[in-house]
Amino acid sequence: MSIISKRNILKYDENSMLDLEDSIAVEYPLTLILNGNEFATLVCTPSDLEDMVIGFLAAEGIIRFHHEIQSIHIDEQRGFAYVETTNKQPVGVEFYSKRFIGSCCGKSRQSFYFHNDVKTVKTVMSQIQVTTEQCFHLMESLQSSSSDFQNTGGVHNAALCDKESIMITRTDIGRHNTLDKLYGYWIRNPFSLHDKLIAFSGRISSEVLLKVAKIGVSILLSKSAPTDLALKMAEDLGITTVGFIRNRKLNVYTHPQRIICA
Amino acid sequence: MSIISKRNILKYDENSMLDLEDSIAVEYPLTLILNGNEFATLVCTPSDLEDMVIGFLAAEGIIRFHHEIQSIHIDEQRGFAYVETTNKQPVGVEFYSKRFIGSCCGKSRQSFYFHNDVKTVKTVMSQIQVTTEQCFHLMESLQSSSSDFQNTGGVHNAALCDKESIMITRTDIGRHNTLDKLYGYWIRNPFSLHDKLIAFSGRISSEVLLKVAKIGVSILLSKSAPTDLALKMAEDLGITTVGFIRNRKLNVYTHPQRIICA
Repeated sequence: MSIISKRNILKYDENSMLDLEDSIAVEYPLTLILNGNEFATLVCTPSDLEDMVIGFLAAEGIIRFHHEIQSIHIDEQRGFAYVETTNKQPVGVEFYSKRFIGSCCGKSRQSFYFHNDVKTVKTVMSQIQVTTEQCFHLMESLQSSSSDFQNTGGVHNAALCDKESIMITRTDIGRHNTLDKLYGYWIRNPFSLHDKLIAFSGRISSEVLLKVAKIGVSILLSKSAPTDLALKMAEDLGITTVGFIRNRKLNVYTHPQRIICA
Repeated sequence: MSIISKRNILKYDENSMLDLEDSIAVEYPLTLILNGNEFATLVCTPSDLEDMVIGFLAAEGIIRFHHEIQSIHIDEQRGFAYVETTNKQPVGVEFYSKRFIGSCCGKSRQSFYFHNDVKTVKTVMSQIQVTTEQCFHLMESLQSSSSDFQNTGGVHNAALCDKESIMITRTDIGRHNTLDKLYGYWIRNPFSLHDKLIAFSGRISSEVLLKVAKIGVSILLSKSAPTDLALKMAEDLGITTVGFIRNRKLNVYTHPQRIICA
């Protein structure tokens, strides 16, 4: 499927209107039918759809391993993904997007607000260390992978990286979809994550932080700002968050022991 | 409630790490209990919460008028909003976030993917016209309302405007929440919208376009890019979309008859 659509627009510039052709990002609704029941609609860029569906199901606690997916069929034209899981009654379904009432669960889980998150996030124990120079290099690499698609504006990127370079990049108009696409790729092609990082173009919201925690990566790099709730979660879960990586400056918000000044 | 939290961070700049205090945007989950049942969790900036809840319910087709809300109580500390509606079984609840299967509904509704949207959007008939100069002025006004909060980064603004100036601005870390906050304000304080515009800081996604259509405003100004699905909806619904309003340039995507070159 195409991820860019061409369209005639009127561009105003220096007191005149020009009629010209422009590239517009495609936005695509994909409805997930899980074991015969409508589960969720993901509004996304139509690329890496199978990875996105698998990553989304893993992030929601519906599956943990690839072999738990019995079949997956995507009807691209109508915008439906049909998934059958080996366990027909995955526990996550009942609690999908349900608020977690946390008073009995101890301080360290108070900041989670969705039930499935409490069950699926894991504390990260990695002792990886990276230099500030490596942080700058990885963020520059993420941004320099610019394409026609990115020129449509407002597009997000996420990448799984080792210390030196980007391994896999995924793109989407939805910030969290980029992370689901990475997660789904990794579930199908697992490798050790203890020495890996995620570089991300967007803001570090709680949703983004939780997806990183579920993937199990210990360092999150972003060119944007975090929210306070994301930082509380990052502290709880052992994740190093680095934001505002721009113009050879950066901010380290949580677990700074993994960032070396060099 | 505070919308900014203070936090000690490490800032790397010119080869050294500085320990300093930074301002971080607060991110707040508010769970909506509708007539005793959990309905949705809105993750937001904790300001104008009652407006946001009312606007969200209207956008979802649960209510149409303020008098349909029997009571609303917000427990700020626990993050719950309790709403009772006069009709205890609003039809929108059943179809909330359910995919609309549109094959029998005619071409003009094919682009809508959620059931409640098909029922709640309205075609806009306004014959308002604005000049390119007015578009530039309104977008500059939106951006110059900068504050400590905006300096935290990644914050969105939406404003209801007349041709000359901004009337009401709402801010949130979530793009769509800014529009729900505007909509809720308007439902509580209704006035004629046929000669009004919405100026918006974020990208024009289908979700944003639908919220504007539900409010019933005919011109949407944005400094960012649109998606193709948003533009298809805008064409169907009679909405003028103007994007990339930057550096005295702009793009008119749909229904250009409302924009005068001057």
